[in-house]
Amino acid sequence: MNIDKLYESVAKKGHVCVGLDTAADYVPPAERKKANNDAEAVLAFNKALIDCAAGLAACFKVQIAYYEEMGIQGLVAYAETLKYIRAKGCLAIADIKRGDIADTAVRYAKAHFCGDFEADFVTLSPYMGMDSIQPWLNEAQGCGKGAFVLMKTSNPGMNDFQQLTVYEDNLPEKRRIYNAVGDKMTDMLLDKKGKYGYGMFGIVVGCTCREEAAIIRRSYPDLFFLIPGYGAQGGGAQEAALLLREGNGGVVNASRSIITAWKTEGKEIDKIDNFFAAKAAECAIIKMRDDILKTIKGE
Amino acid sequence: MNIDKLYESVAKKGHVCVGLDTAADYVPPAERKKANNDAEAVLAFNKALIDCAAGLAACFKVQIAYYEEMGIQGLVAYAETLKYIRAKGCLAIADIKRGDIADTAVRYAKAHFCGDFEADFVTLSPYMGMDSIQPWLNEAQGCGKGAFVLMKTSNPGMNDFQQLTVYEDNLPEKRRIYNAVGDKMTDMLLDKKGKYGYGMFGIVVGCTCREEAAIIRRSYPDLFFLIPGYGAQGGGAQEAALLLREGNGGVVNASRSIITAWKTEGKEIDKIDNFFAAKAAECAIIKMRDDILKTIKGE
Repeated sequence: MNIDKLYESVAKKGHVCVGLDTAADYVPPAERKKANNDAEAVLAFNKALIDCAAGLAACFKVQIAYYEEMGIQGLVAYAETLKYIRAKGCLAIADIKRGDIADTAVRYAKAHFCGDFEADFVTLSPYMGMDSIQPWLNEAQGCGKGAFVLMKTSNPGMNDFQQLTVYEDNLPEKRRIYNAVGDKMTDMLLDKKGKYGYGMFGIVVGCTCREEAAIIRRSYPDLFFLIPGYGAQGGGAQEAALLLREGNGGVVNASRSIITAWKTEGKEIDKIDNFFAAKAAECAIIKMRDDILKTIKGE
Repeated sequence: MNIDKLYESVAKKGHVCVGLDTAADYVPPAERKKANNDAEAVLAFNKALIDCAAGLAACFKVQIAYYEEMGIQGLVAYAETLKYIRAKGCLAIADIKRGDIADTAVRYAKAHFCGDFEADFVTLSPYMGMDSIQPWLNEAQGCGKGAFVLMKTSNPGMNDFQQLTVYEDNLPEKRRIYNAVGDKMTDMLLDKKGKYGYGMFGIVVGCTCREEAAIIRRSYPDLFFLIPGYGAQGGGAQEAALLLREGNGGVVNASRSIITAWKTEGKEIDKIDNFFAAKAAECAIIKMRDDILKTIKGE
């Protein structure tokens, strides 16, 4: 079961999920110039990063929007990036945030759990309801694949709907919409757990709200968290650590702060190649990994 | 502005939106056998359908999941299908239900408002909040593109989250989550209207709930509706008509009942070709179009 593999990867390598949200202008200009097109430039850059990060990252998350933007060529680079991650023995999360009704969900699951776009995990959006999630779980049974369902995201707009309070006559405690999602996910996964006690599917919980973090962790002890919002979006090691459980139970995503770390190195820009950019990323990953580990240990 | 073009198309051709959710086994077996692969079979079938339906359908909706399932080849067929629809002067809705934060939303918008996957409209999912919708509106300003945001869908799972009642101390009337979406969409589009009074972006409202239909139409007079749930999902002309306004203001989607109409014709299966399948689809579209028009007129 992939959720067990992810748990083991965190135990071995720490909590960093490297986000390959690779826009063409994140590639060093000299390398971009050398490539036949932007999609090839992005793929070569990704491969250099994956080579450097494979031993340090708990997993990789590939944001499909950045590849869709480049059309068919971009999606070839997306497929090749996933293949390269998995060929290195690493885990790949396809950040696709799909969410559609039953028949369509089955098609999507087949698209992203096997074939050209095969990933180890996907991200899903719950707005349409649990019958848009269940088909993925059905497809995952045979192959051990996983998914992270959006619960409480890290963007300001999460206040618009996720944070609304649900009116329920018969419940003493007030729940928010995101709780309704988390509660339904917990119910769905009651008898679908891996050997470390986590459900096959997890949830997305941003690390931008320190006040609620500990409550959320306690409310959903059996769900593994994919945690965005670190760095650029304002979250830090303190917030992330509150969302972990006994040092595991979550991966913390960072994208731009890692893959564009080369931009802050002060080296003459035309002399920067993918190898150097990957080294800069490696340093950024190590720093982030250690910041989180130290915070957990209370150092 | 595409929303104006859609209004004019409805006035001229009726309300049917033909859903090209084309699985390979929706293609007549003899044609599928002739093709080099499933993606080519699907594309040839779509083209035959579009040829027949161009004069009858208000627009086409292409569900990307069915193409993603076939990998890169499938997405080439998806791109070619959109191109073919638009080359015929018809309007194409890309049913992609994307929803992601600001930077990512900009990438998605560029992916689906121009380039290989250019469509006239997209569908969007609102769970992450209005900052996942706003970037699409920004991108749409220059080019007149449109979008339909999921509000109240037609699947049973819509009860899980969309139907929950929001707890608000200061409001006399109780709102549901879907109302929170509709209200925010109305606000966002106040000064973004076309010449017929409809906002540049519309909402998705399923035609499966007769009780609420008239109330929803009255609550959102300035939003154009994309209406799923006709036929297979239980909605009929009565329900759909309640969601229209003065005979316009919405398109009603049907997919399987149209594109697999050839399966119910009783003809020897190996003798059925794309031309015959398209004719069967044409009849199904005319019947659906006339059922809705008659209901509006009270016949």
